[in-house]
Amino acid sequence: MEQYNFAARTRAIKRSFIREILKVTDEPDVISFAGGLPNPRLFPVAEFASAAAKVLSTEGERVLQYSTTEGFAPLREHIAKRYRERKGLAVRASDILITNGSQQGLDLLGKIFLDPGDRVLLERPAYLGAIQAFSLYEPEFRSVRLEEDGPDLRSLAEELRPGGQEPKLFYAVPNFQNPSGISYSREKRAAVAALLTESKAVTVEDDPYGEIRFLGEDLPMLSGSLGGRAVLLGSYSKIVAPGIRLGWICAPEAIMERLVTAKQGSDLHSNYFSQWVLYQYLCDNDLETHIARIRSAYGAQRDAMVRMLELHCPPEVTWTQPEGGMFLWLTLPRQLDAMELFERAIKERVAFVPGAPFYVDGGGSTTLRLNFSNSDLGRIETGIVRLSKAIGELLAKSPLLVPGATLPR
Amino acid sequence: MEQYNFAARTRAIKRSFIREILKVTDEPDVISFAGGLPNPRLFPVAEFASAAAKVLSTEGERVLQYSTTEGFAPLREHIAKRYRERKGLAVRASDILITNGSQQGLDLLGKIFLDPGDRVLLERPAYLGAIQAFSLYEPEFRSVRLEEDGPDLRSLAEELRPGGQEPKLFYAVPNFQNPSGISYSREKRAAVAALLTESKAVTVEDDPYGEIRFLGEDLPMLSGSLGGRAVLLGSYSKIVAPGIRLGWICAPEAIMERLVTAKQGSDLHSNYFSQWVLYQYLCDNDLETHIARIRSAYGAQRDAMVRMLELHCPPEVTWTQPEGGMFLWLTLPRQLDAMELFERAIKERVAFVPGAPFYVDGGGSTTLRLNFSNSDLGRIETGIVRLSKAIGELLAKSPLLVPGATLPR
Repeated sequence: MEQYNFAARTRAIKRSFIREILKVTDEPDVISFAGGLPNPRLFPVAEFASAAAKVLSTEGERVLQYSTTEGFAPLREHIAKRYRERKGLAVRASDILITNGSQQGLDLLGKIFLDPGDRVLLERPAYLGAIQAFSLYEPEFRSVRLEEDGPDLRSLAEELRPGGQEPKLFYAVPNFQNPSGISYSREKRAAVAALLTESKAVTVEDDPYGEIRFLGEDLPMLSGSLGGRAVLLGSYSKIVAPGIRLGWICAPEAIMERLVTAKQGSDLHSNYFSQWVLYQYLCDNDLETHIARIRSAYGAQRDAMVRMLELHCPPEVTWTQPEGGMFLWLTLPRQLDAMELFERAIKERVAFVPGAPFYVDGGGSTTLRLNFSNSDLGRIETGIVRLSKAIGELLAKSPLLVPGATLPR
Repeated sequence: MEQYNFAARTRAIKRSFIREILKVTDEPDVISFAGGLPNPRLFPVAEFASAAAKVLSTEGERVLQYSTTEGFAPLREHIAKRYRERKGLAVRASDILITNGSQQGLDLLGKIFLDPGDRVLLERPAYLGAIQAFSLYEPEFRSVRLEEDGPDLRSLAEELRPGGQEPKLFYAVPNFQNPSGISYSREKRAAVAALLTESKAVTVEDDPYGEIRFLGEDLPMLSGSLGGRAVLLGSYSKIVAPGIRLGWICAPEAIMERLVTAKQGSDLHSNYFSQWVLYQYLCDNDLETHIARIRSAYGAQRDAMVRMLELHCPPEVTWTQPEGGMFLWLTLPRQLDAMELFERAIKERVAFVPGAPFYVDGGGSTTLRLNFSNSDLGRIETGIVRLSKAIGELLAKSPLLVPGATLPR
């Protein structure tokens, strides 16, 4: 018998599987492609030291005091201005709420939108953090299969069909998705937006990786054509550093009002000291140059991983070709199980995340996620050799050679 | 018609009344006793600058990376050690979860414990931030009147009576409560703990002010005698600085497990950079000496406020005599209304928070909260003269001289 009488919503959640995996992979001789960490060598450590010294000496006490729930006004304007200038979106500072990473944006959106049983439409596979955040509001999850260029439009149309139970939220990561690395093509963006315009669903466009594009052309935001029916989540975690936990929600006024109230009840406001330090860093350094460095480093790491897979991985295995971001998605032949491979891979001292937890419908057993942003080229080479060896051994044990689809249903 | 289909829980919440009031009182010639801000002159600005420089130069990239949900281990041990040494509580580092201020602790507790309609037992008046945080989980609020030495034991016994609908949570601020300034006496603590031991309710002991005692003897924590039926909330906001948004929950293992999962879904983890800077500050400085300075400053400010009230305030007005913390609670004669006084006081360029929002049962119209921590002695003197004038004028208009009780039902 349970000692405490917890809320019903806690029955829906389990501790993150990835979190548990990361414990196993912590040993120093394991090459881990499991975590979703940015490369710390690119963090602006010295620049942060200067920025912190400057704000404390020039602004003093005020940067350590309580502040407004919405966030530090100049930082909000900085974010809005970049949307205007780089994306052509008509965003004002008042449309921006500073959050504790974009993960908190997901929680706040769940809080203001979801009653138990409400539908949330996800991509398949979907970002695990979103599944976790929304789960606590007890929705019914549905999912639309990702093809190589974005959602399967027929299923999307079916899920959004008026008259059926329409989803309240459609959660999408159109750029270099976590976990799959897939991006929506220009055509798919237009087609998806057209379907969403007809629907009552609010689109949550999560874009933590959008600026880390190392191949192909920049594409328009999904939200750009959805007017007041979309909110946009952004983050400094991948373009500056995640330890400061600063992200944002960009939302229309009526949604923003509820978000601010929810944020106020949740934690009053985001870390004000870090907002000041970050803003000072942004004033004193060229963010675009910094992002270009990240792009170039991750591009080289991604290329190394793909090249090594091509050289060493058994031909029955397929993978996505991400044009940006931090992840690559592998699909094993149908007779293999990624959990079983994980056990074997750990023996070879290499780790990844099995794909099943990214599926809300029980699928994905032959899939796995590889992170390339947090390993240097040498470790990527050694790690993929080890992983390929583990796959080869498992295949030799279960030799039924049926190639898997790139993204199985 | 509403443009968006928000969750039912959002109907229960309104934007903080205090927040709205603070906008009015922002003008520089208004002396404000309204906010709940600590005195920024006591913030360790130079010490933070040294600490930030040190962690960035010696620890580098790792302080800007993602981290564990539970928080920075040495900081958790620092908190646990102080409980052991100063309070005699058997707390281990693993019992501590680092949160974004103790406000997030309230949100996480609501999240894991409250289903719609569950009872939450509050003090009357109660901390507004707790009312806001819990409201989003749609509980039924009940409240127990605070007497000068703690809760009215007869009502508390009645609310906890087995067989009735017992509360899931009892939320208490036993030291220098916000808003009333009241503390539970030693005897009341024992009596309250005895009643709670018989109950299924989990006690949430919120103690942000406990260390800011400038009069009387230190008293035992309520949680100390409740074993696994209590959680304890703490905060660095009042003893170091609030802008870094760092607080903690101390909870038994089975509750901690749920809290960690809820925290992970809410924002992954608290600001890691600030945790490092704070910990470095705690290593390089004597926190007890720093707290002693705060105590002494706030004690002088409280004395000045009480002295000025005694000198200038009409005799029909009564107030609490806080032995610590940041607030003092005024009760007006029955024929006056604190909202009406607020309008008049603003004309005199002095502000406070009317008491009604601290009551979940619609009472409190003759009460108001004064903050003494964020005004120096000169402003306290001028402000209380202005406030007393406004009260005197309102009394002259409505001269029915019925003295109010210190804390009306």
